[in-house]
Amino acid sequence: MAFSRNPATGEHKFYGEWLVNAQGEDVVAGLRTPNPLNEAIKSEHNADMDSLETVMPVVYRQLDAIQKKLEKHYRDMQDIEFTIQEGKLYMLQCRVGKRTGTAALNMAMDMVAEKLISEAEAVSRIAPAQLDEMLHPILDAAAEKKAKVLAKGLPAGPGGAVGQIVFTAAAAVDWAKQGKCVILVREETNPEDVEGMRAAEGILTARGGMTSHAALVARGWGKCCIVGASALHIEAGSRTLKVGGATYREGDFFSLNGTRGYVYAGQLDMVDATENPRFQQFMKIVDKFRTMGVRTNADTPEDAALARGFGAEGIGLLRSEHMFYGAGSDQPLFLLRKMILSHTEDERRKALQELYPFVKKAIKGTLEAMAGYPVTIRLLDPPLHEFVPQSASKQAELASSLGITPDEVRKRGEQLHESNPMMGHRGVRLGITYPEVTEMQVRAIFEAAAELNKQGKKCRPEIMIPVTCDVRELQEQKTVCMRVYNEVLKRKGVRSIPHAYGTMIEIPRACLTADKMAEVAEFFSFGTNDLTQMGFGFSRDDIGGFMEAYLDRNVLKADPFQTIDQEGIGQLITMAVERGRATRPDLKIGICGEQGGDPQSVEFCFRNNLNYVSCSPFRVPIARLSAAQSALAAHGGKAAKAKSKSKSKSKRK
Amino acid sequence: MAFSRNPATGEHKFYGEWLVNAQGEDVVAGLRTPNPLNEAIKSEHNADMDSLETVMPVVYRQLDAIQKKLEKHYRDMQDIEFTIQEGKLYMLQCRVGKRTGTAALNMAMDMVAEKLISEAEAVSRIAPAQLDEMLHPILDAAAEKKAKVLAKGLPAGPGGAVGQIVFTAAAAVDWAKQGKCVILVREETNPEDVEGMRAAEGILTARGGMTSHAALVARGWGKCCIVGASALHIEAGSRTLKVGGATYREGDFFSLNGTRGYVYAGQLDMVDATENPRFQQFMKIVDKFRTMGVRTNADTPEDAALARGFGAEGIGLLRSEHMFYGAGSDQPLFLLRKMILSHTEDERRKALQELYPFVKKAIKGTLEAMAGYPVTIRLLDPPLHEFVPQSASKQAELASSLGITPDEVRKRGEQLHESNPMMGHRGVRLGITYPEVTEMQVRAIFEAAAELNKQGKKCRPEIMIPVTCDVRELQEQKTVCMRVYNEVLKRKGVRSIPHAYGTMIEIPRACLTADKMAEVAEFFSFGTNDLTQMGFGFSRDDIGGFMEAYLDRNVLKADPFQTIDQEGIGQLITMAVERGRATRPDLKIGICGEQGGDPQSVEFCFRNNLNYVSCSPFRVPIARLSAAQSALAAHGGKAAKAKSKSKSKSKRK
Repeated sequence: MAFSRNPATGEHKFYGEWLVNAQGEDVVAGLRTPNPLNEAIKSEHNADMDSLETVMPVVYRQLDAIQKKLEKHYRDMQDIEFTIQEGKLYMLQCRVGKRTGTAALNMAMDMVAEKLISEAEAVSRIAPAQLDEMLHPILDAAAEKKAKVLAKGLPAGPGGAVGQIVFTAAAAVDWAKQGKCVILVREETNPEDVEGMRAAEGILTARGGMTSHAALVARGWGKCCIVGASALHIEAGSRTLKVGGATYREGDFFSLNGTRGYVYAGQLDMVDATENPRFQQFMKIVDKFRTMGVRTNADTPEDAALARGFGAEGIGLLRSEHMFYGAGSDQPLFLLRKMILSHTEDERRKALQELYPFVKKAIKGTLEAMAGYPVTIRLLDPPLHEFVPQSASKQAELASSLGITPDEVRKRGEQLHESNPMMGHRGVRLGITYPEVTEMQVRAIFEAAAELNKQGKKCRPEIMIPVTCDVRELQEQKTVCMRVYNEVLKRKGVRSIPHAYGTMIEIPRACLTADKMAEVAEFFSFGTNDLTQMGFGFSRDDIGGFMEAYLDRNVLKADPFQTIDQEGIGQLITMAVERGRATRPDLKIGICGEQGGDPQSVEFCFRNNLNYVSCSPFRVPIARLSAAQSALAAHGGKAAKAKSKSKSKSKRK
Repeated sequence: MAFSRNPATGEHKFYGEWLVNAQGEDVVAGLRTPNPLNEAIKSEHNADMDSLETVMPVVYRQLDAIQKKLEKHYRDMQDIEFTIQEGKLYMLQCRVGKRTGTAALNMAMDMVAEKLISEAEAVSRIAPAQLDEMLHPILDAAAEKKAKVLAKGLPAGPGGAVGQIVFTAAAAVDWAKQGKCVILVREETNPEDVEGMRAAEGILTARGGMTSHAALVARGWGKCCIVGASALHIEAGSRTLKVGGATYREGDFFSLNGTRGYVYAGQLDMVDATENPRFQQFMKIVDKFRTMGVRTNADTPEDAALARGFGAEGIGLLRSEHMFYGAGSDQPLFLLRKMILSHTEDERRKALQELYPFVKKAIKGTLEAMAGYPVTIRLLDPPLHEFVPQSASKQAELASSLGITPDEVRKRGEQLHESNPMMGHRGVRLGITYPEVTEMQVRAIFEAAAELNKQGKKCRPEIMIPVTCDVRELQEQKTVCMRVYNEVLKRKGVRSIPHAYGTMIEIPRACLTADKMAEVAEFFSFGTNDLTQMGFGFSRDDIGGFMEAYLDRNVLKADPFQTIDQEGIGQLITMAVERGRATRPDLKIGICGEQGGDPQSVEFCFRNNLNYVSCSPFRVPIARLSAAQSALAAHGGKAAKAKSKSKSKSKRK
């Protein structure tokens, strides 16, 4: 079995394996470790094995000539099956070869340089999901240098992996469920191991070659994998592994370098792979064809910077409540709770005043990190109930720090409790009932922006009102915004602060009345998570009870929270775009739901003329590639290229 | 002040009041009890007062002639203001007079008999809401005969009322909130009392006439009201009332006959007012113009019979879970819980088998009560969690009767607990995950129907699948239904059982994909409560936190749970009707949400070509009248009448 280029790395070398007195199945089954095809691809672990090139030089040269011809004809890397009987070469099969994302990228870039394919073809050659593996970390080279290689095997799946070793697929699944990172160690793998392989960070086998089951499956997923590390003595029964005189047990940490095939004991440091210059070059080509903008969902300056590195052209969703969760949230959360527990508007305003500097600081930092790119800030979205502590001890703690009785805290919690909080008192409904909460937030936004502007720093906040279902909600809140805006102008002594006012479209009725919504909103951003929840009547937190049955029985073809349901929810989106733009032709429209980084959903957004998609930082390159491929599919390479140079590109962003 | 007919009863007698040395305000203010206009309308309580007819006979005859002329000209009852200065009559104003529902009905029927108006006009003359007062009970005449009249006053608002007396509007509101029936007793009322008047079952004042504040307001609402019961000595400060030598305190029961103006101490029996032959005649005329069907939402044979009496032409919604709530639910609820707590399909099937006879009996009774009219049976709808007891003691009780540990009950309850149960594992989702639950229910329906058929009793069950969002759900469940259907045919030895298979349309996506839904569904029934919840993202249980603010600030013009939001949710309905009928032109479409009895919503359903509306029994006549008025408005009296005789009428039902 052979590949016209290396399917794991993309290296432009004729690559393959052969076995004497064997059939192709024997190579795939991994029962025997096959010989290398030629000298050029020999590595430390098979240096002592005979290559076809040396054993049968004539046949090898014949084969090499054929593979070159095939690749030139098909203009892509070929997966070739051959046999040699009594010195005669028989070609059995050839097809476009599967490859890792890294290999796909390297091959595409090489083939462009070789003038075998165009840049447009290069962009189309890489499945967006394949980029994923390049966006995930590898072992830190410095750490590797210092560490001792425990064993070497074939680099079947690229990237790095660190985790605890387990010896059965079932254990891999169980441990992963407990949140542990595992390395699945097997003599060899078979189809029954697939779920365990999926659950593992990395896969390590003692037998098998580059075309063994483990290698094929891992490569398909872009998962770190080393096969044929024959130095390992695996005793699955006792859950131990012996190598180099040492014994390792289930739960011990291993680190894998799947790109080189090196196994280490212990936990090595990991680093980012995106510094890869090839990747950066490829993404530049991608952007030549892309006409739709790509933003990111980011809540902190750190996330914003990360996403900028991945090419995000703005923030499509900054969740203002982020500051009340996780590290550093103690004080703002305390003040928020104080606000929630207020009895009167006066008390509430006082608590908001104390909270204000924290909100302003958080927003200012992120605005600054995005260096002039638009930042869509969603006003407070979750029901207040989420912030009231539930346990008696936490309630007592809060009560004592607020100087009230625990009973008051408990009562307020009960008062705020809702049967279906997803459809309860949240989002704009908080802003309508407590306009002072909106007021504080927009003041923080405008003051932060005005201060940055004064320092000569560009920034463009976009105020996004969540959970709206009627244009009058937008009008009510806009009145508050404009009053605060004018107050800030006066106080800061500035003439204007660039900004936009718009809404999240996440309620079916907002889509149905989008013509009216657009009378006030300058932009729409589809919150496809909530829109899917309401449109299907599926609570995302509660689908566990039936989603599996729905997918198993093909009642649904895909989980609509992963990829936009074009048949149903898609209609609402299409309707909202058409009606919104009928009222306001320059209405800016994006999407900020989870599906914004899903290739099929990106394509759908492209067809619906959205200005941008927004997704988590790690998915930004995937979205960029999907958007470029959508443009290519719609317009063809040349047309899109021409278009990308014209004004229409910037228009759409 | 005068009316050309009695505005409280509709009696065709010139009716009015006058005061010497006074202005109109004095009559309205109720500070003085005015004199009767003529001898014919004198009653026991004003028999000793002078009428205008006797004091100024010439002027009275002049006035009487004028009122006759005015009524003939305007073809409706006139509300007239006049004054007499130095023996000369001056007409100040005339307008169409306000009237109670009873009066409106009686006048309309009289005017038809007098050939003053047509039948179509008669139908249009009564606001559907006015029927409400005729549909509510009056004091039992037999009980009244035996009881002693405590005081007499003016019959300002018809019907009967029984309740505990309170002396302030605030008390009326408070007590009513606690679920008590109250009679608001006041010297006289003023605008500040309105909320208390609204909360009371009946209103009783010691002063004022038929045009006093209390009388005007109560009449507008069709509420039982007696004014000017001057025998009462009210001491609001000490919350007591003295009459006939006895003292009554706050909380004592009174009974009012608002149609005659009689006050009784204690609780008299109440009876139904719908036996009124005038009402029945009127509804017959109404049905001449009505083209859309009216069904009822009923869960028991009793409700079904009640609704039949009100003219319901079938059941639009029978909630199969009804049998697990309230009286008589102990055993079926226990068996349902047993089913829920089953560990395996086998256990579940066994529990379902035990539950089966209860389900069949409940369905059979209602099918029989509807005597061949269609009965739409909704399969189990609520999340199972609702049926697991929450308190530790109840859990322990259930556990001991099931022979399991309380912990198991608790755990199962936790397992079933959902964050947003309204969008959780309910309706068809239960049927997809536990097909045996659907199976048991449809077997009960088909066997009940087959047994009735064998007894020569007609019945037509319509199986309704709730909470659907995709046609494949309907396909899955239909397979189960058809299998059971064929089994029942075989077992019962019959060739067929008339029935229909359809779905509730209550999820936005079901509307969006209605073309596909109609490939399998033979009927649609809009569940406008849930459709409104999902379409707005408003949980009905949780709108308390913001709905008031939304209505106060005019963000919403009406509560969409009371009347269909035509602007938004209405689009989904229109879309579903159009798309559904495009696939299946004879698709039967109805509505079974709360709004089915709301006149504006009925009119909307009519315009959208629904076959029927379904509402609670007491609202059936209201819906019938609304439907007739809609047809009249759309086609005009004659056209509709003609149409009602043609096939198109039956077609639509």
